[in-house]
Amino acid sequence: MLDDVRLIVVGFGLMGGSLARAVRPKMRGVIAVDADAATRNAAIESGIADAAFATIEEVNVSADDLVILATPVSAIIDTLNRLTVLATEGCMVMDIGSTKWDICRTMNGLPGWFQAIGGHPMCGKETSGFAVSSADLYDNQTFILTPTVRTTPYLKEVALALIAALNANPIIIPPKEHDQTVALISHLPYLLSATLMQQASNIANGTDTVWHVSASGFRSMSRLSGSSPAMMRDILLTNRPAVISQLLRYQRELAAVVEMVNDGDRDALVAWLEEKQAQHTHYQQIKNNGTA
Amino acid sequence: MLDDVRLIVVGFGLMGGSLARAVRPKMRGVIAVDADAATRNAAIESGIADAAFATIEEVNVSADDLVILATPVSAIIDTLNRLTVLATEGCMVMDIGSTKWDICRTMNGLPGWFQAIGGHPMCGKETSGFAVSSADLYDNQTFILTPTVRTTPYLKEVALALIAALNANPIIIPPKEHDQTVALISHLPYLLSATLMQQASNIANGTDTVWHVSASGFRSMSRLSGSSPAMMRDILLTNRPAVISQLLRYQRELAAVVEMVNDGDRDALVAWLEEKQAQHTHYQQIKNNGTA
Repeated sequence: MLDDVRLIVVGFGLMGGSLARAVRPKMRGVIAVDADAATRNAAIESGIADAAFATIEEVNVSADDLVILATPVSAIIDTLNRLTVLATEGCMVMDIGSTKWDICRTMNGLPGWFQAIGGHPMCGKETSGFAVSSADLYDNQTFILTPTVRTTPYLKEVALALIAALNANPIIIPPKEHDQTVALISHLPYLLSATLMQQASNIANGTDTVWHVSASGFRSMSRLSGSSPAMMRDILLTNRPAVISQLLRYQRELAAVVEMVNDGDRDALVAWLEEKQAQHTHYQQIKNNGTA
Repeated sequence: MLDDVRLIVVGFGLMGGSLARAVRPKMRGVIAVDADAATRNAAIESGIADAAFATIEEVNVSADDLVILATPVSAIIDTLNRLTVLATEGCMVMDIGSTKWDICRTMNGLPGWFQAIGGHPMCGKETSGFAVSSADLYDNQTFILTPTVRTTPYLKEVALALIAALNANPIIIPPKEHDQTVALISHLPYLLSATLMQQASNIANGTDTVWHVSASGFRSMSRLSGSSPAMMRDILLTNRPAVISQLLRYQRELAAVVEMVNDGDRDALVAWLEEKQAQHTHYQQIKNNGTA
């Protein structure tokens, strides 16, 4: 099925580049679209892309093409709007952006001859760019699909075949539920990490002792603060209500923790600490085995 | 120098067991002290300890011995108090507990024929016990020493030789400064991680979607929530003022972040996100190269 399909990857960075690396042997061909000339050269020189262009306007998009939109969210929406003018016979479109409601709403508004589905692979790194892309980035990771009114059974099959080629694990959930869940599981954690990095930087204030003392715990907790600003900007602007809701809830939870530590009640503290450890074990069991 | 010294490790778990594994070939001998019978058996059967006892009272402690206290903080203080009765000719003592002020104050009160120094290796895992110990746990990690009034030049030399044998990197800082720095770099991050785990567990509420959607970002941010409750209890009880101070500061920083996300000012958001990424890069450079 995939060998009938030409892949056009818009945004040939960490996510788009890694996807192309992994599925290239199974596709009819791969076209890279990226504004950055060095990335386009690397895409060609690595043999991952057959051709590379600066804009989607330069590509002769046809109905058999699967266009993968792998840029920050605002650029995905912009490209979707440009496609309506460009691909007069339509095409298949899937995005891999971090929030889904705004994108899927735009997909719903595409002319009826387009096939479109939202996607969100739950993988990434705290670095970005084609140079750090790798064929195993999606391996064994969760890949969310969010259907739209433009999702045909054929496109769904193609999307599932692509996910299978990536060796990723598909989950299908509606766009709204997606955005609420990732606000908790991804966007809130980013903001907590970035806030911690800010606090540590303010206290370090140019001296290095804080950093030398820091160890693996701080490394884990600060890792997300290195995420791409352009990606996070669009995430926070397109998923604001859900993010704010999770932040407010976290503030309430944290206020209770401050009170508990301040009280210094040994038994209450131990009960809470043991409950957290048990919750962590439960989460790990589900991730490791697929069941609790 | 170390081959004159017999090591008595009280608490033969992840930290104590890993230390013994790494330095055993260089010492005159290794004695394990652990309340858990299975741990004592494993210590002997693995060949890491020459003998194992349930309590320090059963060991014939002498002035040439280096007693390493590797239990939670409250048990370290308890053992220090028992040593004053037990080791009538004194001995060398070093602890590797997570907070230093309460312990070093107790060390200051030891009779003058004791030699004592505080220690804190900045490594660990989110699991505990001798079963998960490994000889490379301390490899290339920061190992803090906090001198006391009972720290002799000889003990300091022995401690540095031990740290060299672990292939760890020593830093010497006063106990108070240690406790304030780790409140920021270790205890606050634990509480943030545990609070996130609590929030996610409450929202998941028995269903698995949240966990299936979760990926490496959540894994990093929730890892510390699996830390040993007994260890964290003593940390939070013995470093309460510094932890509260960091929590209150974090609450203020987070309130400003909530306001910024709520405002949705694109330029302000981008400036903040870029600053966080730059701070993360700066921190990584210091960790990787030792300088910025």
